[in-house]
Amino acid sequence: MSENQGLLVTASKVHLPFKTELLDDLSPSSSKFKNGQQPKLIGILSTTKEDAKTYAEFTRKSCEQIGIKFELRLVGEARKFYLKDQDNVEIDVEEAILEANDDPEVNGIMVYYPIYGGRQDQYLQSVVSPQKDVEGLNHQFLFNLYHNIRFISPLTLRPIPSSHLPTPLESKSKKSIQQEEIIPPGTVKSILPCTPLAIVKVLEHIGVYNKLLNYGDRARGKVITIINRSEVVGRPLAALLANDGARVISVDIDSIIEFSKRPSNSITANSESTSSKFNPHHITTPLPEFNLSQALSISDVVISAVPILSYKINTKDLKDGCICVNVAGEKNFQDDVRERASIYVPSVGMMTIAMLQRNLIRLCGYQDMVKAAGL
Amino acid sequence: MSENQGLLVTASKVHLPFKTELLDDLSPSSSKFKNGQQPKLIGILSTTKEDAKTYAEFTRKSCEQIGIKFELRLVGEARKFYLKDQDNVEIDVEEAILEANDDPEVNGIMVYYPIYGGRQDQYLQSVVSPQKDVEGLNHQFLFNLYHNIRFISPLTLRPIPSSHLPTPLESKSKKSIQQEEIIPPGTVKSILPCTPLAIVKVLEHIGVYNKLLNYGDRARGKVITIINRSEVVGRPLAALLANDGARVISVDIDSIIEFSKRPSNSITANSESTSSKFNPHHITTPLPEFNLSQALSISDVVISAVPILSYKINTKDLKDGCICVNVAGEKNFQDDVRERASIYVPSVGMMTIAMLQRNLIRLCGYQDMVKAAGL
Repeated sequence: MSENQGLLVTASKVHLPFKTELLDDLSPSSSKFKNGQQPKLIGILSTTKEDAKTYAEFTRKSCEQIGIKFELRLVGEARKFYLKDQDNVEIDVEEAILEANDDPEVNGIMVYYPIYGGRQDQYLQSVVSPQKDVEGLNHQFLFNLYHNIRFISPLTLRPIPSSHLPTPLESKSKKSIQQEEIIPPGTVKSILPCTPLAIVKVLEHIGVYNKLLNYGDRARGKVITIINRSEVVGRPLAALLANDGARVISVDIDSIIEFSKRPSNSITANSESTSSKFNPHHITTPLPEFNLSQALSISDVVISAVPILSYKINTKDLKDGCICVNVAGEKNFQDDVRERASIYVPSVGMMTIAMLQRNLIRLCGYQDMVKAAGL
Repeated sequence: MSENQGLLVTASKVHLPFKTELLDDLSPSSSKFKNGQQPKLIGILSTTKEDAKTYAEFTRKSCEQIGIKFELRLVGEARKFYLKDQDNVEIDVEEAILEANDDPEVNGIMVYYPIYGGRQDQYLQSVVSPQKDVEGLNHQFLFNLYHNIRFISPLTLRPIPSSHLPTPLESKSKKSIQQEEIIPPGTVKSILPCTPLAIVKVLEHIGVYNKLLNYGDRARGKVITIINRSEVVGRPLAALLANDGARVISVDIDSIIEFSKRPSNSITANSESTSSKFNPHHITTPLPEFNLSQALSISDVVISAVPILSYKINTKDLKDGCICVNVAGEKNFQDDVRERASIYVPSVGMMTIAMLQRNLIRLCGYQDMVKAAGL
């Protein structure tokens, strides 16, 4: 070691004045927290990665030391692994975030990433209410950062709007077939991403959706494999089809996950109530023992959107008579796909543009409504 | 070819009823568009990838065929490449989106991806105003999709709040040193992501920020290399430091990009005005001819956050006397880093937690303000 070694600065040294400030803010004499009130931080742990658990315990220690209440909520895989609790494992990290968003006892939410990695984690970051986003990873805060907007009105810190509108599906009669969507007064249709929507329309056209069934249940009984789980195509499509009743096997490079319709008596992470406070939507189940050719062998429909030139699905893996839809630029199916498939759709690009145009026309109407409301 | 070949269904066949519906909606007799009005779709093209251009021309054709106005706006690399236009190239795709968000003549916005790929593209998708998001890729719409929320109030379709608040930096006096931030009445500080913020605090502590300079300009004159351009650490940190005056060299696996403070006389994509309508924030410039060791050789500060066990920066590439900050779990610097570095910070984890706690205390205050406002 030379004499001329550089200075070693540890974070603990930098930390000192901040710790003093934090202790002041949290002291009983502070004007910020009266009557011995303590702010409450919720940690949400859903992975079984050692690092995440260690970091969570470090957070707990750092919080308790200075007078911040910390509660670690274990969900999904972490709940199974650490609590040996096979109940409640269907509550996923997103629902735990939504519960904490709504919980007036919770002041801050910290989620231990990586969970799914990449884009799905980024999606989750924006699910955290900006009012409780201690990590500052919400889109609203990142936008401000990139635009050098340093000050905001606190009244703009609102969670995603419309997340608690009732959906008409809940009140549907089970006796007669519901032929049409019922649009609640004062509402309009949400906008769907155009590629997944285009694929749904193709599936409707070729008879995968059964019009004899209730609206919202018309893909029931169908097993659909989707190869791709991006936030642009595969994951939204899997959710759409599962919400319409299909059993979806979602295949990506590192995992296979089943998306299916949520049973009506599902439970929440934080209560014994059997009626879910969430809008009834799909649930996901990892299928660690499953591989692609097993998935293909039981699938009525195979949708592939793998943007790799050389990627081809083996025709001999397909179930005889299945329906194949190619979404990738270069075909993901072999030339002889129709030897097995009863229907083959080689491309959906034109439908994607049509759905985009339909979205445009809808949005023009919505823009008029916003203008009329003087907003 | 066997006789028993499956049916081939092309998108054009599925497309027919939708085209009819679109033509009806757009016809002069339609109640949706009166007096021959046509909706206007803006395409934003920023890449020079052949596919994107082809898709843009396909969009144009499909729109013009049925009576939708289509305008393609070329920005950044695409502007240079297709228009041979060296002016206006500093307008990036994000600013083009913001202009279109604000433009009352524009009804819909379509961005041709991939641009940066991965998380940065996802960030851009949420910059598009939900009122004009024909692709349906905004976080708000994806959230609704995943939660099976099919109907929304159009009045909830608002772009990111607070994007047009004036910042006090614009009105600062150039004569005297501005020692403190001035918080405009009715506003509070935005929340910063805790890891980038922790790093800024470390840099302040070790003297990289010069307090003799104006607030918002205190990293001026410093060259800072950041290895990592994720949406969680590297890119927000690069923007923060550039907005504070540093010249930042942002290095990632596939590119090197410079982030620097925007000169005050920058221009907008769509007008000849020389006063920017955007909040003054950083600009980015690709450095295609630059490599990491060149970057290191001129850097006063090197910050590394590469989550790869084996990744090590060569000590001999560092400028003598530089400051090195390791953000990765496994050290990205070699054991002998202090032979070259004048200051070495081996970890920032403890500061990250402190910043998270500070964010929590701030948010508690904001939550009280929201409650007091009865929202």
